[in-house]
Amino acid sequence: MSSWLTNRWYVAGWDSEIDSAPLARTICGVPMLFYRKLDRTPVAMRDACPHRLLPLSMGLREGDSIRCKYHGLKIGPDGRAEEMPLRTEAVNRSICVPTYPVAERHRFVWIWIGNAALADPALIPDLWPCSAPGWTFDGGTYHVACDYRLMIDNLMDLTHETYVHAGSIGQPEILDAPIETRVEGDEVHVSRWMPGIDAPPFWRTALKQPGPVDRWQICRFLLPSAVMIDVGVAPVEAGATPDRHDQGARGMVIDFMTPESETSHHYFWGMARNFDVNDAGFTARMKRQQGGVFAEDKVILEAQQRSIETNPGLRLSAYRIDEGGVRARQLIARALRAEEMAA
Amino acid sequence: MSSWLTNRWYVAGWDSEIDSAPLARTICGVPMLFYRKLDRTPVAMRDACPHRLLPLSMGLREGDSIRCKYHGLKIGPDGRAEEMPLRTEAVNRSICVPTYPVAERHRFVWIWIGNAALADPALIPDLWPCSAPGWTFDGGTYHVACDYRLMIDNLMDLTHETYVHAGSIGQPEILDAPIETRVEGDEVHVSRWMPGIDAPPFWRTALKQPGPVDRWQICRFLLPSAVMIDVGVAPVEAGATPDRHDQGARGMVIDFMTPESETSHHYFWGMARNFDVNDAGFTARMKRQQGGVFAEDKVILEAQQRSIETNPGLRLSAYRIDEGGVRARQLIARALRAEEMAA
Amino acid sequence: MSSWLTNRWYVAGWDSEIDSAPLARTICGVPMLFYRKLDRTPVAMRDACPHRLLPLSMGLREGDSIRCKYHGLKIGPDGRAEEMPLRTEAVNRSICVPTYPVAERHRFVWIWIGNAALADPALIPDLWPCSAPGWTFDGGTYHVACDYRLMIDNLMDLTHETYVHAGSIGQPEILDAPIETRVEGDEVHVSRWMPGIDAPPFWRTALKQPGPVDRWQICRFLLPSAVMIDVGVAPVEAGATPDRHDQGARGMVIDFMTPESETSHHYFWGMARNFDVNDAGFTARMKRQQGGVFAEDKVILEAQQRSIETNPGLRLSAYRIDEGGVRARQLIARALRAEEMAA
Repeated sequence: MSSWLTNRWYVAGWDSEIDSAPLARTICGVPMLFYRKLDRTPVAMRDACPHRLLPLSMGLREGDSIRCKYHGLKIGPDGRAEEMPLRTEAVNRSICVPTYPVAERHRFVWIWIGNAALADPALIPDLWPCSAPGWTFDGGTYHVACDYRLMIDNLMDLTHETYVHAGSIGQPEILDAPIETRVEGDEVHVSRWMPGIDAPPFWRTALKQPGPVDRWQICRFLLPSAVMIDVGVAPVEAGATPDRHDQGARGMVIDFMTPESETSHHYFWGMARNFDVNDAGFTARMKRQQGGVFAEDKVILEAQQRSIETNPGLRLSAYRIDEGGVRARQLIARALRAEEMAA
Repeated sequence: MSSWLTNRWYVAGWDSEIDSAPLARTICGVPMLFYRKLDRTPVAMRDACPHRLLPLSMGLREGDSIRCKYHGLKIGPDGRAEEMPLRTEAVNRSICVPTYPVAERHRFVWIWIGNAALADPALIPDLWPCSAPGWTFDGGTYHVACDYRLMIDNLMDLTHETYVHAGSIGQPEILDAPIETRVEGDEVHVSRWMPGIDAPPFWRTALKQPGPVDRWQICRFLLPSAVMIDVGVAPVEAGATPDRHDQGARGMVIDFMTPESETSHHYFWGMARNFDVNDAGFTARMKRQQGGVFAEDKVILEAQQRSIETNPGLRLSAYRIDEGGVRARQLIARALRAEEMAA
Repeated sequence: MSSWLTNRWYVAGWDSEIDSAPLARTICGVPMLFYRKLDRTPVAMRDACPHRLLPLSMGLREGDSIRCKYHGLKIGPDGRAEEMPLRTEAVNRSICVPTYPVAERHRFVWIWIGNAALADPALIPDLWPCSAPGWTFDGGTYHVACDYRLMIDNLMDLTHETYVHAGSIGQPEILDAPIETRVEGDEVHVSRWMPGIDAPPFWRTALKQPGPVDRWQICRFLLPSAVMIDVGVAPVEAGATPDRHDQGARGMVIDFMTPESETSHHYFWGMARNFDVNDAGFTARMKRQQGGVFAEDKVILEAQQRSIETNPGLRLSAYRIDEGGVRARQLIARALRAEEMAA
């Protein structure tokens, strides 16, 4: 049994990553091919020609179809053969490669790896800030050689910023702020409210005014594997509250972890914001900075994965700071059991 | 059980590859040492000193023998100890390393990896163009990280030239010519006859005259793992036929796949020809060109092997173009069953 | 069952390698962290944070403790938690990482990987020349990708010098000298006495006088994994004997093999000498030369290990020269059985 849910939507890639040229990416252990048809609709199919298994991603696009690079079998976007290697041979329409439901939402292309009959787009996690009016959103794709749940743990506890990101975004005040964790249905919320502090440089610049601020970090885990982090500051006098805090500068960090294998995943990171939305330079600087911050995480996460493998007798422990990650893993485990029961 | 036949001759190397210096090469899963005695007779033995298993190929030749680089045990060409590490110690003649029957024919050195009592040189595949009067023959050795049978499939269906070798030797006419496949005893023949076409540049140059030609490609698979491809053109007026076609320019592509492991093999490629036989420049250009053509195949074959491994639930399919490869694999499977029965 | 003894002292590193900065080194299959406290006492603990298993060696030293780089859990030199990731959380003193007995002797830091209750420093192998008055000792640490017992075999039979070190320290006379092997308790002695020969250049320089010499090589294996080689020359007229030979220039080569895995080990090499003890240039030249000599051994040993793995049907043989190694392996096997009985 795998460590990930099957009957769920996963991010396959950014809308801009999936284009007319074939893209090969392994999703939940399955080598996949992605591309867009001429009408820009995305297509996902198994990345293996039904003839001799050469990856179709090595082939050439022809109209809405793909032609295998080895013997020229032509496969349509529905996965069915359209032309045999020997052009004079009648097409056997029973020849096909598995295709998968895809959907496009919130700047991502999503794939459903389980039972296609259940693939309701309404089940796509609601990453609203990625496509809300008045907000702008951008980010990047990273590969991490660790279990996707280690990244969830990482994101659901921002304590690590103090140590892992000591040289970049870490701030000791974070350690002193009380954390509140709660489960709401299929979500876990971890909140930190830092009232009346001095804004760190990033947020001071975003806010564009002096004076003490209220700062917040609210991590939300959403099944199967998303973490949205609501971050920002508001002037103390604006009266922001944990429930309502649109008075200042607000960002939403969007993280989606799509398993590649049991020990690796694709990490989709982005930041949505409701300030300086037309400042392309801000967006570029933010993405460059994230590259450096993520490099610090990657070193830690991949070392942790290797240590888990070289210390088979040892188990991960959980302390108070880990409550968010623990609750998120519990939601995954509960949903896995539900899938198993339903199967 | 292995995927290859045991009681058969396999190519160990080109006559020029096996020389007085030790050559290490793994054949059918067994690390082997090859060299020639002073009288030029080739020798094959297990590449592991019977003393402490250091590869003998790291040792030094002394006369017809080899001395291990670790403690100096001296092994004769019959595999038996000739001198102990401590020179004063009496030689224990029961110390020996397994040796294997070898034979030299058709410009290759052959090795018999099975029961030595059955190693009849008359069983060496008849690659006659490699050593026929009026013909010249040369080629090279390549390493391919795929099951040797994937290369047989590749060679028994030249349809792939259109796609894999689109930029080099591919020609669309090949797709339009009818194929005829037949099994004759331990051989499979796949023939393509292209009457009255315009000769491609390579063959026009070889033929040295203008006008329409008959062109042919006749692939012959021979157990355990050879493919000879009879290729050439003759002026239409010469009246060449599939059975008799020595009227023009004719070549024989010689391919021998010697398994190294279940997922890799040594590929011996050469071309014999009955034209321009004294033109060393032609030979050199032909070998250089083949390097480029083979690089195109290698990318495909190794990607195919990896895809087979990462898609354990999928199976190779066979269409009409694959009949030659299917029949060749059937001959191998039938011979494997016969070997198993006899064992 | 492992191939090494558990209730024994192994060299963890040179006294100079283990310092205030964290050192990660896998000992007998266990990833370990080593460092020294402010009072210079060495500490050894499992190199995995009890919280989320990140290697503690990636952390930062604070006083006598180490703080994990991920979430800041602070671990004392006794392996117990001293501060939680969330500083306001009360320390749970049951959180701990396994620690191991260490001792410092003969210029090495030693670690006991088995039952700590049995870790008596009196059991540390008596490598007396490393710390004896009138002697000087220095050397280096090497990594070898082979079973530690292959290195013991190598050292207990110096015949290999003639072949492996033909270009450096090999000398044909070694082959002609008779060997005497005997077991004494937990030790194996292999002696070579070469009376009245011409001293090789190294020893001529050390002796600082002309004339024929008696030369000796006496290898001693000590459990669990040490080899001391008593080497030197004395003028013939000095009347040196196998039992008493301090009349000339004498060195003791010290070798300790600490298993890393079943197929790799840490090789600690040094040479103690009772001549030119204040000549730092001599020490530096000796260490540089050993780098070159060891490189010759490493090529052989790692090729031997690979050959053992690729020839699973073949077994190591033993001839007369191997008696020392055979006896050493017998001592290890007997002690392993004793450990098993006691368990």
